[in-house]
Amino acid sequence: MLDGLYKPRSVAVIGASRNPLSIGYRVLVNLRDNHFTGTIFPVNPKEPSIAGFKAYKSVLEIPDEIDLVNISIPAKFVPQTVEECGKKGVKFIIIHSAGFKEVGPEGEKLEKEVVAIAKKYGMRIYGPNSQGVMNSDPNISLYANFTFTPMKPGNISILAQSGGIAELINLQLESRGLGFRMYGSNGNASDITIDEILEYFGQDEETKVILLYVESFQNPARFVEIARKITPNKPILAIKTGTSEEGARAITSHTGALVGKDTITDALFEKAGVVRFTRLEELVDAAIAFSKQPLPKGKRVTIVTNAGGPAIQATDEAIARGLELSVLSKETQEKLRQKLNPMSSVANPVDMTATAGPSEFAHTLRTLLEDPDVHSLLLSMVTPFFVDNEGVLREVLNVAKNAQIPIVATYLTNKRLWGYLAEGAFSAGIPTYDYPETASAVLAAMSEYVRMKGRPSVSQPETITCDRKKTEEILKKGVRGPGGFISFTDSVEIMKFYGIPFVSTYIFNSIEEIESNSSKIPFPCVLKIDAEGIIHKTEVQGVSLDITKMDQLLKEAKRMAESIKGKIKFVIQPMIKTDIELIMGIKKVHDTGTLIMVGTGGIYTEILKDVEFRLCPLSRFEANEMVKKLKIYEILKGARGRKPVDITQIEDMLLRLSALAMDNPSIEEIDLNPVMVTPVERKVVAVDVRIKAPLA
Amino acid sequence: MLDGLYKPRSVAVIGASRNPLSIGYRVLVNLRDNHFTGTIFPVNPKEPSIAGFKAYKSVLEIPDEIDLVNISIPAKFVPQTVEECGKKGVKFIIIHSAGFKEVGPEGEKLEKEVVAIAKKYGMRIYGPNSQGVMNSDPNISLYANFTFTPMKPGNISILAQSGGIAELINLQLESRGLGFRMYGSNGNASDITIDEILEYFGQDEETKVILLYVESFQNPARFVEIARKITPNKPILAIKTGTSEEGARAITSHTGALVGKDTITDALFEKAGVVRFTRLEELVDAAIAFSKQPLPKGKRVTIVTNAGGPAIQATDEAIARGLELSVLSKETQEKLRQKLNPMSSVANPVDMTATAGPSEFAHTLRTLLEDPDVHSLLLSMVTPFFVDNEGVLREVLNVAKNAQIPIVATYLTNKRLWGYLAEGAFSAGIPTYDYPETASAVLAAMSEYVRMKGRPSVSQPETITCDRKKTEEILKKGVRGPGGFISFTDSVEIMKFYGIPFVSTYIFNSIEEIESNSSKIPFPCVLKIDAEGIIHKTEVQGVSLDITKMDQLLKEAKRMAESIKGKIKFVIQPMIKTDIELIMGIKKVHDTGTLIMVGTGGIYTEILKDVEFRLCPLSRFEANEMVKKLKIYEILKGARGRKPVDITQIEDMLLRLSALAMDNPSIEEIDLNPVMVTPVERKVVAVDVRIKAPLA
Repeated sequence: MLDGLYKPRSVAVIGASRNPLSIGYRVLVNLRDNHFTGTIFPVNPKEPSIAGFKAYKSVLEIPDEIDLVNISIPAKFVPQTVEECGKKGVKFIIIHSAGFKEVGPEGEKLEKEVVAIAKKYGMRIYGPNSQGVMNSDPNISLYANFTFTPMKPGNISILAQSGGIAELINLQLESRGLGFRMYGSNGNASDITIDEILEYFGQDEETKVILLYVESFQNPARFVEIARKITPNKPILAIKTGTSEEGARAITSHTGALVGKDTITDALFEKAGVVRFTRLEELVDAAIAFSKQPLPKGKRVTIVTNAGGPAIQATDEAIARGLELSVLSKETQEKLRQKLNPMSSVANPVDMTATAGPSEFAHTLRTLLEDPDVHSLLLSMVTPFFVDNEGVLREVLNVAKNAQIPIVATYLTNKRLWGYLAEGAFSAGIPTYDYPETASAVLAAMSEYVRMKGRPSVSQPETITCDRKKTEEILKKGVRGPGGFISFTDSVEIMKFYGIPFVSTYIFNSIEEIESNSSKIPFPCVLKIDAEGIIHKTEVQGVSLDITKMDQLLKEAKRMAESIKGKIKFVIQPMIKTDIELIMGIKKVHDTGTLIMVGTGGIYTEILKDVEFRLCPLSRFEANEMVKKLKIYEILKGARGRKPVDITQIEDMLLRLSALAMDNPSIEEIDLNPVMVTPVERKVVAVDVRIKAPLA
Repeated sequence: MLDGLYKPRSVAVIGASRNPLSIGYRVLVNLRDNHFTGTIFPVNPKEPSIAGFKAYKSVLEIPDEIDLVNISIPAKFVPQTVEECGKKGVKFIIIHSAGFKEVGPEGEKLEKEVVAIAKKYGMRIYGPNSQGVMNSDPNISLYANFTFTPMKPGNISILAQSGGIAELINLQLESRGLGFRMYGSNGNASDITIDEILEYFGQDEETKVILLYVESFQNPARFVEIARKITPNKPILAIKTGTSEEGARAITSHTGALVGKDTITDALFEKAGVVRFTRLEELVDAAIAFSKQPLPKGKRVTIVTNAGGPAIQATDEAIARGLELSVLSKETQEKLRQKLNPMSSVANPVDMTATAGPSEFAHTLRTLLEDPDVHSLLLSMVTPFFVDNEGVLREVLNVAKNAQIPIVATYLTNKRLWGYLAEGAFSAGIPTYDYPETASAVLAAMSEYVRMKGRPSVSQPETITCDRKKTEEILKKGVRGPGGFISFTDSVEIMKFYGIPFVSTYIFNSIEEIESNSSKIPFPCVLKIDAEGIIHKTEVQGVSLDITKMDQLLKEAKRMAESIKGKIKFVIQPMIKTDIELIMGIKKVHDTGTLIMVGTGGIYTEILKDVEFRLCPLSRFEANEMVKKLKIYEILKGARGRKPVDITQIEDMLLRLSALAMDNPSIEEIDLNPVMVTPVERKVVAVDVRIKAPLA
């Protein structure tokens, strides 16, 4: 619980000074000027008073109990001061001072020392190198932060790893006349984490929307756990940076090669139900609508306009963002036609034309709100000089106040003349934006939240039948190839134990063994080499396809045996002819969890990157969503006269793969590549497998 | 020449009235209040004077010559009035009045009548249903428009098919304190077209940037012709709407199926060198930078910041938009390190940290401007309360005024306290934006213009050797299948005449013919059916691959002969084994020109849409750009140990295809699908072809 941090009854400011350019001074006057409801105690060994407050030589001299302390003295003096705070019985310490982990090993040592001291006394550290916290609750009014923007109550809480970004968001909200609820930017996060603050904001009843900015997750798995408890009740809108980062990674599997920083974040946010943004402007614009409006009923937007161009722009953007245009019923269209001028368009977008006045607006909105296909309303308004624009606004607000769906607007007007209209709409609760496309983007973000909120619980995997014990036995055996891969034979066994369809496979140790088993060979067949250290068989010509005769088989086997040194085995499988290849895989990511992947296989895999990732454990709903999001889904469904593929089989394989990975934490990577899909025979079957599971 | 429209010496306002809610009144006072330098004559049969001007009963009564007339009387009276204007010797008429083509056939008839009358007298019509024109040239000061925003000179000209959008752009420029140069929104465009106005803006020396908003092209080919003359000298930034439109089209070819509204626009804009936008906000933001700053030297941006978070956001957005981060030389980094505090980062992004003052800013910018890898500068600034922020601005402006590359900035500050700093930078010519990502997007747009400006002339196709005469003879022959397709035999011949590599092909009229030519058959071979009316052979099982023996071939031929009714031919080709298939094609688009396409072939073609389109005639440079933009280019280059493909051969094929289409206007569509690419044999060869060239 962070109540002592966000709802303290008393705050001491250590490092408070009379220098108006000092952080200590700023925090002190910020607390004072924003009307902190508790008691404020400046601490300064040299001054008798600061900013009208009696100053104390040390925190130990303060007569009252202290919940929260702000420290902005030079880093080297911090440990001693924290020790004193401990003796005083302080509960929380915000360290604004820089000069810790962010400056190198020396600073890191100092930081650890500080945290250790705090721990000794049961105190919690916020920072160091942090901007501070704010709580606009009028019963608290805590501005323990060194920025400038005046505090105003609101229902949006801001949490950002970067102080600059937290402030940027706050400034933008303020410039639209909005406040915030709680605010946190915890710098080096040596003790209190982003996750902990997030959980606290999640529990705060007055917080309606949480805005989150993260540069790196401290504990991604914990983040998902916390966030997914919050998102069914209130939206988290988040930016995770570093999308352009290209980490150098040791790539040993296809699945691994396809995992990017961004993929991981996407999978985390998808599991947690967090709405992801890349641009701050879009985050802020969306936050305003989430703050002021109810959620849409679905992704079908209805656009109402009195000018053509802006509605076209709004439509293009809405479609580009995955929204759909509602289809207005005949009754709705008929009713609209009754009162609108004949030049109007009564289909969506509804264009009332420039002459529409208050009664046309009222009639149109009222009619649309009755149509069940109208999930959200986008109002695009110009202000013709020959129309009673004030009357229009009055009617719009009148209808809007009973609406159960979100209404967002764009006011295309001369602000000097009619800016007050847009302001009026905004203060009455209808978010207004300068550009029609922004309104579409905002509704798309709301609809994305509704999509995730509406998912069946994604935590409950199906129970599958498998031979878990035998699998564990194999994985316990000490035989590993380079990189920690188990043998092909073992991998194929595990597929069997977990019911993952795998093509019938014959493994021979020598050419003689092939010869003496000639009756078993399933012509036309495929011959593959299995040798230690070979990761991509095709790159060493270790795969021969479509062999129809014994002599051909033996010739190929000899060629391979000669070209590859060391101990090899021969793998023979029946040739499966199909032009649909998938890839499936598992990749454990340190601290984050286990990613599962499905995508288009074959030579195009890494080029086209038609892949979907999710976090394990996987539910059937998620497995189905993954497959449906692939571009190749069109082909799987049976495009251009093809037979459709049995999607359930693909889902089953994914669920079994997920179970295999979750049951056996030593598994780090699995590649099923390719997985052959044969629509005619209605089969989905893997023909190659690699499992990386190093010994502990 | 539109001088009489944009630089009239006298303007008559027909329909001027004393009613302040009338368009005629607005235009009159707009002309007056914006200080038109010529003479203004209101025309009204009932009033002796309006707004202080003597009014005339009819245009014929005006004593002076009239260059330009504005008409805002009801539509039905317009023809007679235009007739009078003709008699008077008027040169240009702006018709604001609605009630013409936009209301249906009756209005369309009226509109044609008006244009015919004007033509009779050599007058030009602007509109009807139009907002009007403006020219802010202080020597003219023409506000012949019924909107409100006061006119202020600038170097951006605005041209929009939608009056609402033109005004929105103008309002946004005005809200940033910017003016415009010329302005046009020509409504129904019955006579004077967007193209004509565009050409006029292109010739205007004071116009530095042209903003264009188009909903539909009247004559796309003409647009390209005009725009490509302008773009080498000044940028055209454009939005073309309808990106979400899904036109119902008769699809008879793969190439045709892949052509979308958006594809055509992309190809048009690419050929014309026009920078495309989808969002108005981005268009306006970019226009500001184009208006105020020099062009970047290339796509390598350098980010300078005094706070981490915003620089990360700017970096992510820059990379996402195709920019690259400059790599600062060792000397540059060394020089930066000398004066910056040790906690600074001297690699790109250069983070001077929050304590950086005027001298650090000056030193950093000066140093960076000397590094040749610095193509543009993005300045991300917070305003710490302990820094001399005014001094910083002074130094920034001082260094910036000699910069030969663009500098754009984001000011993250409390506007009430330090808004004047951002304003100061802005008025001094450094565009400032609220969000760091916006600055990146703007530089990306500038770099996109530079890319297109730097292309070698794309108009000069290479001369190719071909047998044009024989091709023309074939195309003149009357034999056509359904849909206007020429026969497969003829198509293959044409490939030969134009030197387009095509697999050796044997065509037999009967099974007996196959049998008697058995020695010629190139086993393993492919058997295909060639029958009238079959468009996609695979869908009717009309293709058999990898036939190794004569009896198998005959069996397949019999099966096909039995399953398909009507006259059929048998096509036999050697089997080409490869996993790289391309598709190439030609598609003539009405009024627009001839599109040429290359992309990933095979079953994934229409799903993955990895295709590139350009307008013919194609230059080698363009052909090369097309191939390089494909995702499959990674494979063509030789990914994962593959041999690289000879890209020149692909270019050659495209150039020959382009020449074939340009030489023979009767050709409407060509599909080369698939085109087999065999890296080992270094061959690129088409194995199927269809040519649609209906008889005139």
